[in-house]
Amino acid sequence: MSNEKEFWNEETLKPLVSNRSAIMGGTAWAAYAPDPRKLISFAGGIPDVPSLPNNLILDATERALKNNRTESLQYGGTLGPIALRTALAERSVQTEQFEVRSEHVIITGGAAQGIGLVCDTLLNPGDVVLVETPTFPGTIRTLKSYGVELIPIEMDSEGVKLAAIEDALTALEKKGKKPKFLYCIPTHQNPTGKTLSLERRKQLLTLCSEHQLLILEDDPYGEIWFEEPPPSLFSLSEGGTIRVLTFSKIVATGLRLGWTLAPPDLISRMAALRYDMGSSVFLGNIAAELIRSNQLENHIKNLRGIYSRKLTKLEEALELYCGEHVRWERPAGGFFLWLELLKGLTAEAVVTAANEEAVIVGNGNNFNVTPSDSNATEHIRIAFSYVPIEEIEEGIHRLGDAMKRILAEKGKGS
Amino acid sequence: MSNEKEFWNEETLKPLVSNRSAIMGGTAWAAYAPDPRKLISFAGGIPDVPSLPNNLILDATERALKNNRTESLQYGGTLGPIALRTALAERSVQTEQFEVRSEHVIITGGAAQGIGLVCDTLLNPGDVVLVETPTFPGTIRTLKSYGVELIPIEMDSEGVKLAAIEDALTALEKKGKKPKFLYCIPTHQNPTGKTLSLERRKQLLTLCSEHQLLILEDDPYGEIWFEEPPPSLFSLSEGGTIRVLTFSKIVATGLRLGWTLAPPDLISRMAALRYDMGSSVFLGNIAAELIRSNQLENHIKNLRGIYSRKLTKLEEALELYCGEHVRWERPAGGFFLWLELLKGLTAEAVVTAANEEAVIVGNGNNFNVTPSDSNATEHIRIAFSYVPIEEIEEGIHRLGDAMKRILAEKGKGS
Repeated sequence: MSNEKEFWNEETLKPLVSNRSAIMGGTAWAAYAPDPRKLISFAGGIPDVPSLPNNLILDATERALKNNRTESLQYGGTLGPIALRTALAERSVQTEQFEVRSEHVIITGGAAQGIGLVCDTLLNPGDVVLVETPTFPGTIRTLKSYGVELIPIEMDSEGVKLAAIEDALTALEKKGKKPKFLYCIPTHQNPTGKTLSLERRKQLLTLCSEHQLLILEDDPYGEIWFEEPPPSLFSLSEGGTIRVLTFSKIVATGLRLGWTLAPPDLISRMAALRYDMGSSVFLGNIAAELIRSNQLENHIKNLRGIYSRKLTKLEEALELYCGEHVRWERPAGGFFLWLELLKGLTAEAVVTAANEEAVIVGNGNNFNVTPSDSNATEHIRIAFSYVPIEEIEEGIHRLGDAMKRILAEKGKGS
Repeated sequence: MSNEKEFWNEETLKPLVSNRSAIMGGTAWAAYAPDPRKLISFAGGIPDVPSLPNNLILDATERALKNNRTESLQYGGTLGPIALRTALAERSVQTEQFEVRSEHVIITGGAAQGIGLVCDTLLNPGDVVLVETPTFPGTIRTLKSYGVELIPIEMDSEGVKLAAIEDALTALEKKGKKPKFLYCIPTHQNPTGKTLSLERRKQLLTLCSEHQLLILEDDPYGEIWFEEPPPSLFSLSEGGTIRVLTFSKIVATGLRLGWTLAPPDLISRMAALRYDMGSSVFLGNIAAELIRSNQLENHIKNLRGIYSRKLTKLEEALELYCGEHVRWERPAGGFFLWLELLKGLTAEAVVTAANEEAVIVGNGNNFNVTPSDSNATEHIRIAFSYVPIEEIEEGIHRLGDAMKRILAEKGKGS
């Protein structure tokens, strides 16, 4: 075995791999390693660390193992642990005044597995998917691995533009094509922080219903709100919406636990295609205990306060240190502020200069669906979720210094 | 949403779904529901319930949450939690006297996800895979969903026949085809309980190495031994083996946690294709604590005693109640006894008659790779893992009665 480099390596494997693997190559994602430098990072959509609910999870684990001694450690089937499916269905009545039944629910390894299972179930190579742009790069990666064509759908100040969807549908129809679904994040969007209004949601659903176009509603941030958002597309729709959710942002990313709501026949097909024999019953029963004890609701209320205070601190610092060079709209929730760069500042230049000042921000262009998406204005994404509140001012001070340095050098050059 | 039956249902979804979904349909797997009848079940490969290690897991959870307060609840990357990858690599030195490095390890949702990720990475529709027959139906299902051609490879008393592999390779070569890999369970095989000897392992590896044929070694039962098995194919090979393992049988199926060992370049490709953003760090750190504290080793030793005693009880009962109608070889480990039926008893008839006596056994034909696999002798699979030891005699008494009834009716009829 020690000699495996001798024969089985990238060179010998390459001719053997699947089309999906050929597209994706061999790059593992190492998550966010603790950075050795004394950096301030506004880079990743990672939750606040001090509020991670270790004690709540430990208590819930104890209850899950004692109350359901045998059940928590046994197979739960491909739809996922029934205790959690039931708890989530009941919870949606409380949190959304909207009835979901357990047959609408499949438990997944985070929202990411939900999206992957939807792709497994609906996509063949050559299919077309509409994707609002800019968007979450993880989903772009997943979609691309299926060898599908992605049509970027532009957003305006509020979110996905209906006219852009209509134009895309018309153009596709001329080619005899029909997209498999529209992917969007209507609430506290990643990266833009935008939230679609109730009015626009209804119009979107009418449009998609007319065209029998399924919507894949990715909703990881919906419950992290500072002003209560409109109801989800799923709850407003007549059944043409698949809604993907996760415990990552409201409990912990390290659980890798989420759920998807969809028409029961689609849920069954997703369950039939997953090869992992279902999600962890142990994790599922822990999450069900968190829901049933009401500890989850209290925790989420607490998180809203934490992230709202971080955002306020961020906005104060932006006013103070970057005010004249940038423009933004306060997001109504979520983890991200989408910062428009003014006066010829480019995202590329700001990200590089900020890095030299030991502060990390996201290059807005990395969130485009295709490299050629029109991007008339330049943006950076500032994730305010992870950075300790007491470091926000210093981080934005450094960012402001970076911007001033770029402009000063530009001034010299011209 | 309440109207979703009106438009989005099986009928409207069918023209929309992927090729994989079209193959698999919409059947979710509901695991093993508690049976309302007072049945004795030798059906599923499910662990002994009273020995499920609730307390060990709770202790390990406490340590994982206290020792790695922030790490256990955060993203761990697509290779899986590093603490567990390292612990598993170190453990293989102890348990197998064989060095594995963490770069050979990817953490998965049970062995099943490991197998699925190997398929994602290597298989395109139309590819060919060699599969020893009979085998685990879950893997047959997964492989079939990829639209590949399965070539059954017969086994003899010891396991997979080398001549059958050579014949298959020759036949394929004539058609200009080459299989992507050979799937086998060389240790305490499911369903036959067979274990490949050291000598046969070495011959198999030589053969596969000559033909540059990868081996997918599924090894969920290897550590549940009553006589210590030969080293794994992975540890004996020069790198052409992918070994899939799981905590399902040695800790609990409900964790949904496993790992795969493979050449690092293949591990990277598997990581790049998984869309779930990696396995649960929380679960991984719990398992790492179990390994590091040595509690896992003690628990496995305990399990070997439990399953060995159940097997002895089963053999005693078979001698007593079914002796003249059946033949078997004592498995050296695992969960299954493969019972050959004599004197014209068919698996179909025995399964049906046993069910009428309220005892459930597995129809041997359900483990064939293709319905047409030659099956000169008829078998049933008896899983002795799950049934309480005090019910084994009664269960086999009922099975014996079922066999006698079939033969009596046959006698009357002829």
